[in-house]
Amino acid sequence: MNYTLGDLAALLDVELRGDPSLRIDGLASLKHAGPGKLSFLSNPRYVSQLASTRASAVIVEPALAVSSPCAQLISSAPYVTYARASQLFAPRLSSSAGVHPSACVHPSVIIGEGVSIGPHAVVEEGVTIGAGSVLGAGCSIGAGSTLGENCRLFANVTLYHDVHIGNRVVLHASVVLGADGFGFAFDGRQSIKIAQLGGVRIGDDVEIGAGSTVDRGALDDTIIEHGVKIDNHVQIAHNCVIREHTIICGCSAIAGSTTIGRYCTIGGGVGIIGHLNITDKVMISAMSLVSQSIAESGVYSSGTGLLESKEWKRNIVRFRQLDDMAKRLRELEKITLGK
Amino acid sequence: MNYTLGDLAALLDVELRGDPSLRIDGLASLKHAGPGKLSFLSNPRYVSQLASTRASAVIVEPALAVSSPCAQLISSAPYVTYARASQLFAPRLSSSAGVHPSACVHPSVIIGEGVSIGPHAVVEEGVTIGAGSVLGAGCSIGAGSTLGENCRLFANVTLYHDVHIGNRVVLHASVVLGADGFGFAFDGRQSIKIAQLGGVRIGDDVEIGAGSTVDRGALDDTIIEHGVKIDNHVQIAHNCVIREHTIICGCSAIAGSTTIGRYCTIGGGVGIIGHLNITDKVMISAMSLVSQSIAESGVYSSGTGLLESKEWKRNIVRFRQLDDMAKRLRELEKITLGK
Amino acid sequence: MNYTLGDLAALLDVELRGDPSLRIDGLASLKHAGPGKLSFLSNPRYVSQLASTRASAVIVEPALAVSSPCAQLISSAPYVTYARASQLFAPRLSSSAGVHPSACVHPSVIIGEGVSIGPHAVVEEGVTIGAGSVLGAGCSIGAGSTLGENCRLFANVTLYHDVHIGNRVVLHASVVLGADGFGFAFDGRQSIKIAQLGGVRIGDDVEIGAGSTVDRGALDDTIIEHGVKIDNHVQIAHNCVIREHTIICGCSAIAGSTTIGRYCTIGGGVGIIGHLNITDKVMISAMSLVSQSIAESGVYSSGTGLLESKEWKRNIVRFRQLDDMAKRLRELEKITLGK
Repeated sequence: MNYTLGDLAALLDVELRGDPSLRIDGLASLKHAGPGKLSFLSNPRYVSQLASTRASAVIVEPALAVSSPCAQLISSAPYVTYARASQLFAPRLSSSAGVHPSACVHPSVIIGEGVSIGPHAVVEEGVTIGAGSVLGAGCSIGAGSTLGENCRLFANVTLYHDVHIGNRVVLHASVVLGADGFGFAFDGRQSIKIAQLGGVRIGDDVEIGAGSTVDRGALDDTIIEHGVKIDNHVQIAHNCVIREHTIICGCSAIAGSTTIGRYCTIGGGVGIIGHLNITDKVMISAMSLVSQSIAESGVYSSGTGLLESKEWKRNIVRFRQLDDMAKRLRELEKITLGK
Repeated sequence: MNYTLGDLAALLDVELRGDPSLRIDGLASLKHAGPGKLSFLSNPRYVSQLASTRASAVIVEPALAVSSPCAQLISSAPYVTYARASQLFAPRLSSSAGVHPSACVHPSVIIGEGVSIGPHAVVEEGVTIGAGSVLGAGCSIGAGSTLGENCRLFANVTLYHDVHIGNRVVLHASVVLGADGFGFAFDGRQSIKIAQLGGVRIGDDVEIGAGSTVDRGALDDTIIEHGVKIDNHVQIAHNCVIREHTIICGCSAIAGSTTIGRYCTIGGGVGIIGHLNITDKVMISAMSLVSQSIAESGVYSSGTGLLESKEWKRNIVRFRQLDDMAKRLRELEKITLGK
Repeated sequence: MNYTLGDLAALLDVELRGDPSLRIDGLASLKHAGPGKLSFLSNPRYVSQLASTRASAVIVEPALAVSSPCAQLISSAPYVTYARASQLFAPRLSSSAGVHPSACVHPSVIIGEGVSIGPHAVVEEGVTIGAGSVLGAGCSIGAGSTLGENCRLFANVTLYHDVHIGNRVVLHASVVLGADGFGFAFDGRQSIKIAQLGGVRIGDDVEIGAGSTVDRGALDDTIIEHGVKIDNHVQIAHNCVIREHTIICGCSAIAGSTTIGRYCTIGGGVGIIGHLNITDKVMISAMSLVSQSIAESGVYSSGTGLLESKEWKRNIVRFRQLDDMAKRLRELEKITLGK
């Protein structure tokens, strides 16, 4: 796969300073790029690498173009332009249209144009699969579920019954959508299962990472809106609502019936307890526990910070004396300051 | 699926106040219910919604029955009655009895009456599957394992060899039971694998959520007793024992050889280190780290609580000065209080 | 499976004190061992169990051999000798060489001698599988990937395209290698996907636990070096480098572009943020968050320790007053100590 620099500038809709006939056969970081590669500078931390890069061309902001030792693609948002360029160099994963002979597809299934259903996939009664969608090997799609157009399901994805996903949705390997929410009523002796009667609805342009799970709702549906991006090993419990364009990093868990607003960024390993409301544009830092609703946009954190264990042990002992210390401090203030 | 209110009262063994011929075709929350729906009130927080609900009937406590604007099913435990009612409205997932032609089942396998083995399932030598059990698409059952009656394994579940599960066990998609415990001996240069020679034993009425894992024991078995409910993404390491009716919420991890008592509730994202004993009726709040045994029932927590990051950063700096602060406070007390 | 004690001593290369003709048919702990079993003492905590064990033989250090009531295998490293012994008693999992008729293997695939490809496995174009490797049921291997010799993939493992693994690598059920790293560029309105153009490289003698994921690199590869052992539910993000012989316990997550040195031990549930450098021989205790690079070997921790919730709530309130308390303490010191 290769392009002339002139073609790239046209495809990416940016200004070119340099030889349009130069051939570019891949992307690389400033440090590791060699001839034929296109690189980019988006993080000011790496500006010193610009002068010495061996890349044939770089994507840079207008202000930095002068200091580039090679051809330049001038972009006001180099990272976004790099993202678009990366898609031009992505390998086309082979997936011939049609149903693989080893797949088990119920005769009632409606299959759009150009759909590819991989080996050993199973598609149950009443499913609809939109044009151009690709189901990887070993995927299992439960009865009555619907997939939009141009979706991509990698291997061993499981959708239970009545899971509805939009267009251009990417589900990585071993994703599970629509498993029962975790609901039980305790009768004093044992836990009685609450049948999970809702479904799952996923908007357009959602991507969900390997092994992540979105449970079906208890009564209403669990909802992931347009443009949400979810990393690996994330758990979304029943009846959560994740609003548009929110990002959830790996290994985070959202307990039941919590709503997360638009354009939030949930760091890795975050836990959010159930029945909360998180407003728009909230950032939660890695491994924080969110135990109350958040009504104001902003950045939130919890935890103690990392210490050498010896030092940590000394301080941890004091943590449990903290309330006592606070009271003693107040006592001293009364005596010393007379107030 | 629908019932008359009279039939529902009989099936749920509760008193009906209202027209027994009324038809009910589903469950809904007080807020979203419309005509034909049965709702319930179990959380006092929602009592104000009772007066305005459009449900045709509600499950309520005797004391609240008078204020209901519609027919009532009177229950001393409305949430439990709701759980039982939800099961009456759960869709029957189609799974015709018999072995799907694409499944690979070793001739030695003993298959009970009414068993359903789905497409592309693999069942190895010497397995026994009890009457009425259903194996979803792509499940893999290792040699010598046994399943009780009326178990339900959803798609892509993996059981290694010598995994023994009881009756009415539900395993959600991508569950893995019996993978090797994480055991290595370091010889000063590299890690030498300790073969994991034990198995896994799961009691009756256990439910395990999507993607959760229970490792096989090193020498003895890993044990999950009757009635335990485990949510998604939970890790139970080798030689753990989880006693009857304990609940483990999503993304929690129990390290090796730890025993958890009966009727415990382990919150989401909790970590419990190895070789501990947790007594009965212990509750651990979300994302706590349990680093020592717990001998008394009660509620336990760890963590700092969530703060706005600016405020958090100010305090986190002090956390590492905490021991120093405690000593300085003591010093002042000696001087000021003379003791 | 059984051995004479004399044969075991020879196979394990240790000194025998006792009857070499004694037959040993299994391993057991000191407490649970009966006649015919071999046990071991490696943890001094269990030394009191040595006198009363019913095992036929024990693996012990030279100094403890005198107090053993049965035959002894004398080892300077009993735990390592136990590990080696355990491998002698591990069941040989049946996996007949050859390609199962239900597997889908592209004609271009190069298959080494003695390879076993299980039912419903899928192997795409251009894959190479080294001699003696075993692929379990439902595994999916993407185009151009390579497996070394004597690898073992359990059921439902997914390798994307261009994933390269060394010799004697063990991948447990539902492992996913080579899914897209979590990379998006935000254009002010939505997240633009950054195509993940790198691959994954795994060294020799690596073991990866059930459900764990290693993402492919954005530009360069994600790398796991020789001898690394990774437990269940671990997430390794794009462009991480995990150096030789490091151990990563269950449910830990390493964010993108972080490098972890050799012979580190990362406890369970640990989070390590992106773009960090962790030097060799670092231990991180369970559920710590590592938010900065670590340049010195040692043990590191974070968190507050577990408290009864009532006590915890009292102290947690003070955590957010900590900075204020520190300032007030300083004020008192100025007055009382005059400095």
